[in-house]
Amino acid sequence: MSQRQIPEASVARLPLYLRALIDRAEAGVESMSSGELAAAAGVNSAKIRKDLSYLGSYGTRGVGYDVEYLIAQISRELGLTQDWSTVLVGAGNLGQALANYGGFADRGFRIAAILDADPAKVGMTVAGVEVFHQDQAERIIREEDVAIAILAVPGDAAQEVADRLVEAGVTSILNFAPAVIQVPEGVSLRKVDLSIELQILAYYEQRRLVSDDLANGAVRRHLDGLPD
Amino acid sequence: MSQRQIPEASVARLPLYLRALIDRAEAGVESMSSGELAAAAGVNSAKIRKDLSYLGSYGTRGVGYDVEYLIAQISRELGLTQDWSTVLVGAGNLGQALANYGGFADRGFRIAAILDADPAKVGMTVAGVEVFHQDQAERIIREEDVAIAILAVPGDAAQEVADRLVEAGVTSILNFAPAVIQVPEGVSLRKVDLSIELQILAYYEQRRLVSDDLANGAVRRHLDGLPD
Repeated sequence: MSQRQIPEASVARLPLYLRALIDRAEAGVESMSSGELAAAAGVNSAKIRKDLSYLGSYGTRGVGYDVEYLIAQISRELGLTQDWSTVLVGAGNLGQALANYGGFADRGFRIAAILDADPAKVGMTVAGVEVFHQDQAERIIREEDVAIAILAVPGDAAQEVADRLVEAGVTSILNFAPAVIQVPEGVSLRKVDLSIELQILAYYEQRRLVSDDLANGAVRRHLDGLPD
Repeated sequence: MSQRQIPEASVARLPLYLRALIDRAEAGVESMSSGELAAAAGVNSAKIRKDLSYLGSYGTRGVGYDVEYLIAQISRELGLTQDWSTVLVGAGNLGQALANYGGFADRGFRIAAILDADPAKVGMTVAGVEVFHQDQAERIIREEDVAIAILAVPGDAAQEVADRLVEAGVTSILNFAPAVIQVPEGVSLRKVDLSIELQILAYYEQRRLVSDDLANGAVRRHLDGLPD
């Protein structure tokens, strides 16, 4: 792992490169230029070269980056060369979908236990993982050496559950609950809002409608009263 | 809507500002400085001021941004002042969780129909939405004026399903399937990889382990053979 702290925005792009590289490696590709990696990861190539330079990777002129080597380097940098124990909190629809989602285990994120506040769910097995009562959180986090928790609880329960997990020793929370939560300094928090990406698509859809209208002469039909 | 095309990275941040603003509006806050918005959205304040300047919003010195006005402006810019019909393809665990996820409808994304290739799932109702056979895709997309499709199919089916949706007139795809898919130019594609955020958390977890080790004198215990 590089000694240097990598800028947060660059860290957030490393998984995108990793996904693109693994995809190409599976297709038998052995090296990629920054331009090819840019097309596959959806990031411009100057940014990619900059991001990878933090890892000490500069590629070889005329050859590009060695795919397997770069996969190993990014995996190591991201901490994916070790397995991580996680707890998944919430055994509702979303929690069950997440437990069944193969992509976590593939990347070394093992769900050690599912926790739920509902006694009726305790003892269920989802994707081979047992559901425990939330009261067992402290014990399980300690015994399974869990640092990362995945929150899939209702929005109004999210802050209270997060507080309890942090109290029990969790230092990273991935929040799928539809609520903004606060964590103390020193605890990492990432939020997944499944509607964010839809909103981005809506922007481009609206652009399409407007340019169709412009093409049809029906200028500003979609625009309402707000000033530009 | 502003006439000017906003940079892609800025578009991608607008939903983050919108979420933070709505959260504060619900708490009764009427104005926010760029610094407060920065803290709530997790983006630095210079970037926020730049992004909002594309919308023609500059705030008022000493007062900040008017929360309700900025919500209206961002919503209009993102195309959220109209409702969007979507189809959700895949009625498995993830598809069902997505159908049940309230966050889509809250933002004006109505799921007009759920499609699945499995005849056994046809006729089911998930979160009040009927499941149709995938063969009905063309008809439903036409009749319901669907521009946006949400893909929650197995990875190996994703490309074929995407091709068919595009053929039927869909111009935006939100891909939850664990596969890289290609779409023709003029079609928007966003990919949600639920493990990406976990990988980012793993980076910071690993940093913590290393700094604990450094503190304990057990320098480089976690580092393997790759050169820096």
